[in-house]
Amino acid sequence: MTDLRPDAQAMLARALEDAKPGPAVRKAMDSLPPADHYYLISIGKAGWAMAAAACDCLGSRLTEGIVITKYDHSQGPLPACHIFEAGHPVLDQNSLDATAEALALADRLGEGDCLIFLISGGGSALFEHSDLSLAELQEINQALLASGMDIVKMNTLRKRFSQVKGGQFALRAAPAHVNALVLSDVLGDRLDSIASGPAYPDHTSKDQALALVEDYKLDLSPQALAMLHKDLPAQLDHVTSKIIGSVGGLIASAQSEAERLGYQTIILSDRVDIEARDLGQFLGGLAQTQRRLSSRPAGKTAYILGGETVVTLKGTGKGGRNQEIALAAAPYLAGLDSCLVFSAGSDGTDGPTDAAGGWVNGESLARLQEAGYEPAQVLKDNDAYHALAAIGGLIMTGPTGTNVNDLTCLLLG
Amino acid sequence: MTDLRPDAQAMLARALEDAKPGPAVRKAMDSLPPADHYYLISIGKAGWAMAAAACDCLGSRLTEGIVITKYDHSQGPLPACHIFEAGHPVLDQNSLDATAEALALADRLGEGDCLIFLISGGGSALFEHSDLSLAELQEINQALLASGMDIVKMNTLRKRFSQVKGGQFALRAAPAHVNALVLSDVLGDRLDSIASGPAYPDHTSKDQALALVEDYKLDLSPQALAMLHKDLPAQLDHVTSKIIGSVGGLIASAQSEAERLGYQTIILSDRVDIEARDLGQFLGGLAQTQRRLSSRPAGKTAYILGGETVVTLKGTGKGGRNQEIALAAAPYLAGLDSCLVFSAGSDGTDGPTDAAGGWVNGESLARLQEAGYEPAQVLKDNDAYHALAAIGGLIMTGPTGTNVNDLTCLLLG
Repeated sequence: MTDLRPDAQAMLARALEDAKPGPAVRKAMDSLPPADHYYLISIGKAGWAMAAAACDCLGSRLTEGIVITKYDHSQGPLPACHIFEAGHPVLDQNSLDATAEALALADRLGEGDCLIFLISGGGSALFEHSDLSLAELQEINQALLASGMDIVKMNTLRKRFSQVKGGQFALRAAPAHVNALVLSDVLGDRLDSIASGPAYPDHTSKDQALALVEDYKLDLSPQALAMLHKDLPAQLDHVTSKIIGSVGGLIASAQSEAERLGYQTIILSDRVDIEARDLGQFLGGLAQTQRRLSSRPAGKTAYILGGETVVTLKGTGKGGRNQEIALAAAPYLAGLDSCLVFSAGSDGTDGPTDAAGGWVNGESLARLQEAGYEPAQVLKDNDAYHALAAIGGLIMTGPTGTNVNDLTCLLLG
Repeated sequence: MTDLRPDAQAMLARALEDAKPGPAVRKAMDSLPPADHYYLISIGKAGWAMAAAACDCLGSRLTEGIVITKYDHSQGPLPACHIFEAGHPVLDQNSLDATAEALALADRLGEGDCLIFLISGGGSALFEHSDLSLAELQEINQALLASGMDIVKMNTLRKRFSQVKGGQFALRAAPAHVNALVLSDVLGDRLDSIASGPAYPDHTSKDQALALVEDYKLDLSPQALAMLHKDLPAQLDHVTSKIIGSVGGLIASAQSEAERLGYQTIILSDRVDIEARDLGQFLGGLAQTQRRLSSRPAGKTAYILGGETVVTLKGTGKGGRNQEIALAAAPYLAGLDSCLVFSAGSDGTDGPTDAAGGWVNGESLARLQEAGYEPAQVLKDNDAYHALAAIGGLIMTGPTGTNVNDLTCLLLG
């Protein structure tokens, strides 16, 4: 049995290194347009790391900056920058206050100025301003989540309750040039969805918004209803947007490393969004099938996937989606020679755990059972963390400073 | 937009034609060993069709035969055969009575005789005999299903309560030669699992059986407990077993037809067993990913899968696993050019419906919405049948007379 762990480690290490936002921001800064004055606003979970790289490149050319990130995500002061921490995933008063500062900065910008707008996941909650009260915003959010409408419909409404979402923030910054650099945490990299698209035109209509209220029988205050009549900017000629990192990059780096290690590579999906355990089962079945179909030695093959699976919580254990993918694959890989499934979150924290994900191979099931763990029962309890910990199957990276979804691979050696 | 429906229809028609049990039985009969007398026992949902083909080949060489199939599955008398119909999926008194006749036949066989034993899915319920009463057997079965143990463990116990499962029936037929021809409805084609392996050696031990009773705290009668001490035949030298049809064949036929139509083919799995809607979503995401990654025209590609997905029922609508696969893929394919997902059960009946499955393409979502159906809501209601019916998305084949799981394909034209 070939040990494929070194290959898996090399692929993941390379993918995570390439996914760091710093180098990507630096590279994008090389092609910055000329301007009289440079300003910076950086929002999201990777807000501090992205701003740090930009500050480093701009040096004394940076006039003023604002960073809005999640609590405990600032790593210290940055030159010429005000740093705010605020609530995520539920917005709080600090989100609103910090965003008011950002709006005040946008209002001060003029012709010849360039606003570098760094956007990463988490921006929807961290970056918000509205005529509605915080309490009413939170209440509406709850009602939308309970309504059963999909995310596209929710955003059609949410953008109208906001003064920054749906391109509105970028509009406030005109006539300055807005140079948006985006680290995508949304499958399919839709710029109108990442952080609710504060710098991207919107193509929904007020009629659509009003129809949704009727269709879903939403109970809104007169003030909230009035806001739905708002038109959102359908065109933003002073904005350029560029995706500087995404799950696509994570996949490409893993693929490139696998090829260097002698694997034939097959990218199956860059937008997996199914139940985590189902993906694990599917990959286990794929491994069995390929082993049966191909006469050995068929050469090493790496099946690579990216995305963000979901976990329907039923138990009270500890785990995360990537750990569940690995654990669910174990019974299917059992006894197969030279195969490995690994899955890890690019942010280094899978669910509410200190692990990034997990890995299993053909021996894992036997080792789990020896340690007293039955995968079916463990999954029922959503307790993958303890089971994988018992067999050394956790992937520990620590926080990585990036956030571009998850990487999942099946290696057949 | 190329219409890929004719390709999908051709692939499915070819796969279903090749999966008919008659031709496979006929082919296997060509290499029948010489014998003084030929006998036939045919059990399972395809029992009648398999027996009909064997009778046709044997003609006057057949001394006596017994067919045990599901209610309404006999298509009329067969020469020299007694035909019994019995309960499925829950065994009934007719199952026990018919199996008693089969055991009596087995006991009459001697040296120089050959028993042609035709086995297909459903045999576990249709073919059973036990010292326990029908009521106790049914009660134990309920307790095992409620215990949470997996199918392998359940079979370790169930085979011991039976006088035919786990190789015991074939043992009763010794010293006659037993020629078992098996139509597999079990993923992975495990001969010890199909119809509970009446002609296949068993390698579980009585100690394992007794430990399970303790581990799962099963409350068994003294008589049932005593039966667990039974040893099952670990070797059956007078038996030859051959799988004459399985999902692997279904896949190979679809692949061959796709290649004839000019597709590059990729077999992803021959044992998909995940939640149906997750497979649909996954294939939709796969389609999006390949469209993004490959520069057109990349040639036509067919992704082919076989297996048996599951549906976790929550709603009260009408549908089946194959229909849910298709419906769940629709939102992901929306707007994509020249792509199609289809899925169908080889038996022609998907869930409790008269459809074999369903198909969708890049236009299906818009057509569903025009007809007033939102896929997310339809899946919540488990009501795929009505939604697909509204857009002509049902696949109707009628009962096919075979039972080798399901075929699922993604075509990119």
